[in-house]
Amino acid sequence: MSGKRTVIGMDVGATNIRSARVDATGTLLARDRRPTCADQGRDTVVEHIVGSIHAVSDDTVEAVGIGVPGPLDPDTGIVYAPPNMTGWGDEPLRDLVAYKIGKRVALENDANAWGLGEAWLGAGRDRSSLILLTLGTGIGGCLVLGGRPWHGAHNVGCEIGHIVYDPDGVPCGCGSRGCLEQYASATGIARRAAEGIEGGAKTTLRVEGLTSASVHEAAVAGDAFAREIIEETGRILGVGLTTLCNFFDPELIVVGGGAAAAGEMLFDPMRAELAARAIQMPAGLPPIVPPQLGEDAGILGAARLVME
Amino acid sequence: MSGKRTVIGMDVGATNIRSARVDATGTLLARDRRPTCADQGRDTVVEHIVGSIHAVSDDTVEAVGIGVPGPLDPDTGIVYAPPNMTGWGDEPLRDLVAYKIGKRVALENDANAWGLGEAWLGAGRDRSSLILLTLGTGIGGCLVLGGRPWHGAHNVGCEIGHIVYDPDGVPCGCGSRGCLEQYASATGIARRAAEGIEGGAKTTLRVEGLTSASVHEAAVAGDAFAREIIEETGRILGVGLTTLCNFFDPELIVVGGGAAAAGEMLFDPMRAELAARAIQMPAGLPPIVPPQLGEDAGILGAARLVME
Repeated sequence: MSGKRTVIGMDVGATNIRSARVDATGTLLARDRRPTCADQGRDTVVEHIVGSIHAVSDDTVEAVGIGVPGPLDPDTGIVYAPPNMTGWGDEPLRDLVAYKIGKRVALENDANAWGLGEAWLGAGRDRSSLILLTLGTGIGGCLVLGGRPWHGAHNVGCEIGHIVYDPDGVPCGCGSRGCLEQYASATGIARRAAEGIEGGAKTTLRVEGLTSASVHEAAVAGDAFAREIIEETGRILGVGLTTLCNFFDPELIVVGGGAAAAGEMLFDPMRAELAARAIQMPAGLPPIVPPQLGEDAGILGAARLVME
Repeated sequence: MSGKRTVIGMDVGATNIRSARVDATGTLLARDRRPTCADQGRDTVVEHIVGSIHAVSDDTVEAVGIGVPGPLDPDTGIVYAPPNMTGWGDEPLRDLVAYKIGKRVALENDANAWGLGEAWLGAGRDRSSLILLTLGTGIGGCLVLGGRPWHGAHNVGCEIGHIVYDPDGVPCGCGSRGCLEQYASATGIARRAAEGIEGGAKTTLRVEGLTSASVHEAAVAGDAFAREIIEETGRILGVGLTTLCNFFDPELIVVGGGAAAAGEMLFDPMRAELAARAIQMPAGLPPIVPPQLGEDAGILGAARLVME
């Protein structure tokens, strides 16, 4: 992409659409944010996507990259019945948008766009491979390899939330049992805390309205039970990262998402568990770090998709 | 490599050194096999390696690829105190051999050489990525990506035997607990069978002299306990493969090594467990197949290393 040319990067979430016009250096030149209206059907969402593109467009724009909740096939641009989008079947979202705007469009899983943004301009600058984990309602993930998101041979990669933590563990919506996200997502943290409270744990926490954020707050306020839940979450993630490091050995691990706000209380036991378990060669282990770009990572990664 | 030029591929095991002169199509033009004498120190092993190279050399040979038990750094050619080689520290094996023969030498982990051979001319022909598991004393493994073994960012990849199967499980020599190879290697199969026998299982098997091969033989002869041990091994491997597929989604999975001789009795439950657990996209799941090249895979993969 030459100096004057720009692209649009867009992050389509279940709640909001956020987009920006972006130049070759990653500078955001114009921004737009509007509701997704995911409950109003496919055509309304497409209309809002196109509206947001027009809001940030000018005559320098060459192409549009869009990060959306998967599952999807980036080669065909088809989104497969995303659970966050009411009433969607398998929809050719890329071509629907491209037809309306008359420009090249690329579609990518939102976690992959986030990881690509961090790899380009954030925590993973100058790294050849990174694994990103996002601790939210579930655990999203992405593997960036040589500057591109890895899709796998069948477009599954990279569902880090569904690596098996406990083969006989908690049933997961994916059909398996004991998936990592059942224990270490924001939802998993709240569930484990609730089980402890119901089991009679001494804590200021109550089951009603319990979230990973309230567990973190209580831990900061000195609640030992809450602190142990966060630290145990770090150890659980450290076990999952041991598997990823022993198998794949990435250059860097980035852990973000809402539940990662617990910071060092979570990261320290995660790093300690990895150091205690993972096979170490003389070159050492991958650092585990938070993301650096905040909400813009998804927009920048989506923009990066269409820069050649 | 032009038509007349050849390379030498070599597989250095704890017991034997096997080598061959190989042309660009993978035809083995001359072979040698001799004892490694791993208990007689580094200089003796190097002497036997060089002797084997001379035994298959002619004036068409351009370079030598050597597969050896790791750990090692393929970039520096240094082998780090391999447990199967008595008295070795960190040894510059590549340069020791290259100095003696005056040709280019490449060094690779033996499991990586095996996988590369299968990717080139065996089960993985025409596949862009494959994961190989070898079920032996431990579980070795390899990831071949775009025709090259993946080394990881710190030369750890790809220790599939040490992905975590049970976080609180059996202690492993690597320092972690519950590693896959504690359950599903030939050693792990024999251990689980012995535990069942000591627990009073009804079986023709005895603890004395128990091996994964004797468990397989008993299962073939109709011993229900032995059959369940083999089938359970398949399910355990299926859990491990679920993690690998959900994270990385390879195009093909190859399962070889001594304990894989159990064949469909092992492969069927492995495939069933993967199908029941792994996230499936419309493109489906990777096939799980046995290797095709037998003992020559390691030689051919080592040869492939030095063909450009």
